[in-house]
Amino acid sequence: MNKNLKLVVIGGGSSYTPELIEGVIKKRKELPITELILVDVIDGEEKVKINYELVKRMFKKENIDINFSYSLDRKKALENADFVLTQFRVGGFKSRILDEEIPLKYGFVGQETTGAGGFAKALRTIPVILDICKDIEEVAKDAWLINFTNPAGIITEAIHKYSNVKAIGVCNVPINMRYDVANQLDLPIEKIRAQFVGLNHLSFISKVFVDGKNVIDKILYQNNENSENIVKNIEKIDDVDKINQYLGLISSPYLQYFFFPQKMINKELDNIKSGKGTRGTQVAAIEKKLFEKYKDINLDVKPKELEERGGARYSEIAINVIDSIYNNKNKEFVVNTINNGTFAELPDNVSIETNCIISNEGARPINSGKFPKSVTSLIQQVKTYEEYTIEAAVNGDRKKAYLALFNNPLINNKEKIEELLNEIIVKNKKYLQNFLD
Amino acid sequence: MNKNLKLVVIGGGSSYTPELIEGVIKKRKELPITELILVDVIDGEEKVKINYELVKRMFKKENIDINFSYSLDRKKALENADFVLTQFRVGGFKSRILDEEIPLKYGFVGQETTGAGGFAKALRTIPVILDICKDIEEVAKDAWLINFTNPAGIITEAIHKYSNVKAIGVCNVPINMRYDVANQLDLPIEKIRAQFVGLNHLSFISKVFVDGKNVIDKILYQNNENSENIVKNIEKIDDVDKINQYLGLISSPYLQYFFFPQKMINKELDNIKSGKGTRGTQVAAIEKKLFEKYKDINLDVKPKELEERGGARYSEIAINVIDSIYNNKNKEFVVNTINNGTFAELPDNVSIETNCIISNEGARPINSGKFPKSVTSLIQQVKTYEEYTIEAAVNGDRKKAYLALFNNPLINNKEKIEELLNEIIVKNKKYLQNFLD
Amino acid sequence: MNKNLKLVVIGGGSSYTPELIEGVIKKRKELPITELILVDVIDGEEKVKINYELVKRMFKKENIDINFSYSLDRKKALENADFVLTQFRVGGFKSRILDEEIPLKYGFVGQETTGAGGFAKALRTIPVILDICKDIEEVAKDAWLINFTNPAGIITEAIHKYSNVKAIGVCNVPINMRYDVANQLDLPIEKIRAQFVGLNHLSFISKVFVDGKNVIDKILYQNNENSENIVKNIEKIDDVDKINQYLGLISSPYLQYFFFPQKMINKELDNIKSGKGTRGTQVAAIEKKLFEKYKDINLDVKPKELEERGGARYSEIAINVIDSIYNNKNKEFVVNTINNGTFAELPDNVSIETNCIISNEGARPINSGKFPKSVTSLIQQVKTYEEYTIEAAVNGDRKKAYLALFNNPLINNKEKIEELLNEIIVKNKKYLQNFLD
Amino acid sequence: MNKNLKLVVIGGGSSYTPELIEGVIKKRKELPITELILVDVIDGEEKVKINYELVKRMFKKENIDINFSYSLDRKKALENADFVLTQFRVGGFKSRILDEEIPLKYGFVGQETTGAGGFAKALRTIPVILDICKDIEEVAKDAWLINFTNPAGIITEAIHKYSNVKAIGVCNVPINMRYDVANQLDLPIEKIRAQFVGLNHLSFISKVFVDGKNVIDKILYQNNENSENIVKNIEKIDDVDKINQYLGLISSPYLQYFFFPQKMINKELDNIKSGKGTRGTQVAAIEKKLFEKYKDINLDVKPKELEERGGARYSEIAINVIDSIYNNKNKEFVVNTINNGTFAELPDNVSIETNCIISNEGARPINSGKFPKSVTSLIQQVKTYEEYTIEAAVNGDRKKAYLALFNNPLINNKEKIEELLNEIIVKNKKYLQNFLD
Repeated sequence: MNKNLKLVVIGGGSSYTPELIEGVIKKRKELPITELILVDVIDGEEKVKINYELVKRMFKKENIDINFSYSLDRKKALENADFVLTQFRVGGFKSRILDEEIPLKYGFVGQETTGAGGFAKALRTIPVILDICKDIEEVAKDAWLINFTNPAGIITEAIHKYSNVKAIGVCNVPINMRYDVANQLDLPIEKIRAQFVGLNHLSFISKVFVDGKNVIDKILYQNNENSENIVKNIEKIDDVDKINQYLGLISSPYLQYFFFPQKMINKELDNIKSGKGTRGTQVAAIEKKLFEKYKDINLDVKPKELEERGGARYSEIAINVIDSIYNNKNKEFVVNTINNGTFAELPDNVSIETNCIISNEGARPINSGKFPKSVTSLIQQVKTYEEYTIEAAVNGDRKKAYLALFNNPLINNKEKIEELLNEIIVKNKKYLQNFLD
Repeated sequence: MNKNLKLVVIGGGSSYTPELIEGVIKKRKELPITELILVDVIDGEEKVKINYELVKRMFKKENIDINFSYSLDRKKALENADFVLTQFRVGGFKSRILDEEIPLKYGFVGQETTGAGGFAKALRTIPVILDICKDIEEVAKDAWLINFTNPAGIITEAIHKYSNVKAIGVCNVPINMRYDVANQLDLPIEKIRAQFVGLNHLSFISKVFVDGKNVIDKILYQNNENSENIVKNIEKIDDVDKINQYLGLISSPYLQYFFFPQKMINKELDNIKSGKGTRGTQVAAIEKKLFEKYKDINLDVKPKELEERGGARYSEIAINVIDSIYNNKNKEFVVNTINNGTFAELPDNVSIETNCIISNEGARPINSGKFPKSVTSLIQQVKTYEEYTIEAAVNGDRKKAYLALFNNPLINNKEKIEELLNEIIVKNKKYLQNFLD
Repeated sequence: MNKNLKLVVIGGGSSYTPELIEGVIKKRKELPITELILVDVIDGEEKVKINYELVKRMFKKENIDINFSYSLDRKKALENADFVLTQFRVGGFKSRILDEEIPLKYGFVGQETTGAGGFAKALRTIPVILDICKDIEEVAKDAWLINFTNPAGIITEAIHKYSNVKAIGVCNVPINMRYDVANQLDLPIEKIRAQFVGLNHLSFISKVFVDGKNVIDKILYQNNENSENIVKNIEKIDDVDKINQYLGLISSPYLQYFFFPQKMINKELDNIKSGKGTRGTQVAAIEKKLFEKYKDINLDVKPKELEERGGARYSEIAINVIDSIYNNKNKEFVVNTINNGTFAELPDNVSIETNCIISNEGARPINSGKFPKSVTSLIQQVKTYEEYTIEAAVNGDRKKAYLALFNNPLINNKEKIEELLNEIIVKNKKYLQNFLD
Repeated sequence: MNKNLKLVVIGGGSSYTPELIEGVIKKRKELPITELILVDVIDGEEKVKINYELVKRMFKKENIDINFSYSLDRKKALENADFVLTQFRVGGFKSRILDEEIPLKYGFVGQETTGAGGFAKALRTIPVILDICKDIEEVAKDAWLINFTNPAGIITEAIHKYSNVKAIGVCNVPINMRYDVANQLDLPIEKIRAQFVGLNHLSFISKVFVDGKNVIDKILYQNNENSENIVKNIEKIDDVDKINQYLGLISSPYLQYFFFPQKMINKELDNIKSGKGTRGTQVAAIEKKLFEKYKDINLDVKPKELEERGGARYSEIAINVIDSIYNNKNKEFVVNTINNGTFAELPDNVSIETNCIISNEGARPINSGKFPKSVTSLIQQVKTYEEYTIEAAVNGDRKKAYLALFNNPLINNKEKIEELLNEIIVKNKKYLQNFLD
């Protein structure tokens, strides 16, 4: 690899940026970054500027001398990049809140990454990510794209199907689930190998290895006092322990939407009724406060308050993946990559989330055999939803959009699909012009 | 085949029997039956006796001289049978009404063949049908079993997996769907070839051939004034036409439970509230009247009132299948048989409902390629439910029973499964002793 | 279908034509042909003229009044055809003899349809059949193409992959194998259902049904005095009976090339040494005599001498397939059609030879489960050879041609492939210009 | 893992033992072996004793204090073993020479691991390895079995199918092929990642990665002066370079038997005619000299002459695999393990040879997508041969033995199988009693 390691962060105005930079600083020996650019769109200029100033102070504190800048000219910024990190949100919190609220009106789960909300987010995001990929193909064709933007699995698949960019999709849920397992077993994280199977935000730990032995039953059946909410935005429902026992699997917190849709809907409705608002509303408020904090010219480290924001260990996984690629470390991470025969129950060209060896060749999935039968058809159904969603987004195809929602298990009363779809398109029309032509 | 064609009807006390006999009478030239026995259990003695007397009068009217009897000794009756028809209902209407009512308490569809109701029926029925098969293996090993008992797909699969009996599962829905297509196109039934794909009570017409051309779009998009309720017990919901257009398929009426679960639940609840009762309650009343009618010693034909009962063309399909086997006619029928590679998306050893060539070799499925992508994962999910159900029933295995319901798309709030399952077992304890040991 | 049934025979100058016409005459009630054209290329004009005169006399004898002609203008002749029969041979006997002789020089089987000879024939034939298909697409788009030209399986697949013409590939080997089984069991052909699995000239009878029971062991283990050479051009080698017993299958005579390559090569070499010449040389002589016979203005029936020619029952199968399509008879024939999931061990888009229902929809394969394990990899290997052959022929691609021969089990010393391939291309250069550009 | 690391070597009388011990000595820091037993059968006592004395001197030289012994009581020796290495040869060189000579009489390749010779070796070896596994299950159930005995792929599969022992099959060909690639590119071995696909002694390098880029074309098309014989016992035939170019793959030297069977047969025949004898004859002579050397009481290191013996880097791979398991290093090695869905073109329960992550969980294959199409059916065919061989060996089943040879591409004239098989059984009767009962 070249010596002048260049990193470009798209969505540089995100409130996560200080955490990412913290990671960059910690890893600076292994990752000798010489150029770093925060990129954002014009609407994000204010935020990216705040981040830029804070990061400058962080670098100064550590005596780090990097060619560091921010930019609104994405293509120019991408020139000869080695790594591109994408963490943008098309439409911002306003769109997120719509994603959470619209489905509720039809009796469905409203969530930013799954169900009809995640669907709307995918429709908005796919054209943008493919545009970014076109830029990368032109000005940084050897770059690795590390994507965090949700729905991360769908985005990874869209990139694979419609561009030549080398991409890995990253999510912080698997690492947090593995930490949770380690806590429950009272063991250091290094002692735990957790085998993940499934899709992004639809994954399961199928086996937990300690010293080469599968000890998942200890997790499933012991009293897990050390367990806690794995992701900030999804409160645990106790019934999930019982389900995990029946399945013989540890399910991602996002599975709760599929297991208990009505309970989850009720929680959401309660939050709205109580004035607390959707999770998006809450996070928007947190973020506002965060940026106030970031502006403080005396602040030169990542502020603790960022942890409330959710997305814990996001920087840890991102920087480690980059390190394992750049330094060809062949370390094992759970990421989103292309199936390519790893799971026989899914098509070859779709994205999966599973344990991979990360090296300068990218992500190579480790074979773990067949899906557990008890959740295979659920995974297949959600994948069908995802495939239709990508086709719909790329072509502005309402029929494919309908079939996407039709195949989503969270949309269980099919007579409401047309109206729901229509509202999604109308309310997102700024970003979904291809559906309106 | 031997010249002394012997037919045994298990569940001979069913109110359908006169229709079946009407079919036997019509086909007597091609099917030279010399012995016919109506078999029932002790609780069904009264009904089977009524049927016996009516059938005697029907035969007399037509000057038919057959060795005809009824029996409560199943194994003895089965000796050297050539064809065995099974049309029994374990637990009778009382159990059916429970199957319809229990799921409603948990917010789920209550229906006798699908969802949690069909599940309960399967648990009761599988041990009985396997007992019958054991008898057949012992005393009539070359006999063909033509099964009508619901859930017909699950029953066919259980027979295949746990016995050596040659069996074909028959349902009247496909033939009625084909008639409906013929009516809509104003063509005689012979001009229509409808390609069916899927499972029993989860089937779709994927193509409609007239003169070698696929004309399904005519059905999907024309104003179908001639269309009517295909099955008596499921009133059509208009939204299904729109869905069929999106899918490019004509869906079985039973798909409405999967498309509009809440609407279907509401209808069921309305019927109960209004005092009309569940469909089972209504049919029990109809049947009571029917048997009053059957007792009339002047009646010597199938009474017209039987048509209200549902199950139209049941005799047509049953007798034609027997005819095509006995006379090796190689005619095409839509029946339930073992997949054996017909649909690559399902395991080899499961039952499917599709177009088959029926001959003295049994049912050979005609290849029709892959499932339509838009409904593949739905079919896979229901099949997973069916496989777990069979394992649960055979072994009295609560975990498998749980996983069956977990995989049933009509059971969408998983936290209720344990309680629901418990109530099913307790209320059916007479028939589910193997779950209680 | 239209009332004016038009049949076009491409390769009308073939010596088989009188047999085909005999079939047309016999079936004239079911197949009311109003127009018939024999088409050939300019080099075949003499022969097609002789056939034309003979057929005129045959029609006259039977008082048949058809619009009958011959033509060298293929596209014009094809206009509005309902059925097109292709029975041509690119390069004539001269090429066939080369196909038989060239491989022998390298130590390989020399045969016109299999091995390197069949490969050369495929390279010459595919561009021509695709040209014919282009004509059909333009001037007779609803026509059915019934192809006899060898290698019939490869040709059927090439048509499917590179045109939209509705085609069925027909071969007389399966029907002759079924007659042979009937003779051995001393039963009329109608009593026998033989299940075929595999590819053209690489097929096996996996089961023989009589009265619904599989009696293949009777054939495999009884003393088969009634058996005879199934195809004129392949003398039976006794060892094949032993192999069939081990496999539990009845193998096509063409399998002898795969089972006993050295013995078959020795036979071929003996024929050449003895002055008898290859089979092609012999048939060329027979054909010469046949056409002398055909010229006899007193001849007005198919001459008996034609039977020596090989190709028995060719007309029977061709005319019956046309009849079953035209009259939508849904009869079962063994033909070459597209796999489309019938055999899971092969790709979907390749040709297979198996039992199909023939109707106005074309050929629908009947499911018969998995290939017998003992011959699965042989079938897969030959199919790989076939797929590469088609790619090579269409694109004039030497690498694909190499890989075709590399995957052919009859080419077992791979160091000779390049030289062999070069000689094939040079000697066939008139027909393989696309390899030389 | 326990602190008292115990290693048992079955076939301890092998001439390879000093190399293995050399490896043990080099790795002693990472692998703290406390007990080491060389096991052999009574016929091998003399050799194992010689080895025992030599190894004692080697340990003494290095001041290594291990509980070291030799034993003829296998089961006792295995008690509580942590690692078991199997490197025995049933029947010794006498049998090997028969394996090489018998097939030649029928016109087939005679080789100890592939073709009919490898088949005979498998028949002799499988019952013995399964006996060993029974012992391990009883007295050392947590032990890892590292198998070198050929045919290593078949042996690995037999262990998986018929025992519960945790086993990894190891071969020195892949590591030598990778070294060869490194030499050709003039790069250190660590810079090369070579992706292997296929089976033991039937493997291919599909991609060669340097700095994350696939550079296989450099190997395929450059003038490879640095290349040399990868395995001692197979002299390179130049034509293989041309074939590799067409395939786009680097093929294992053992593929030469499949590519050039006649040339390989001729070489073997020449060796016999010239008095040099088969490879087995030559190696037997080398070994005799080696043991003379080993007896030298002044020898206390591995003698250089061992390298002539073949089997280079055998100790390197064996000891490294043990190290990666024991120390959970998650290093990547090419080993034989169970497919379990890694290659969709093969059954789940068969052995493959491919890149795996080796840890305390054993070998986890890394997904590398589909087999290259050009060699898929060859691999499938050999696997079918292997599956039948195992069934034949376990059950003494002649029919399965026949079908094994029938499916072996090196047995191309099938009429000779029965006689060949008979001679194999008769000449090996001491070890194949189960075929004679």
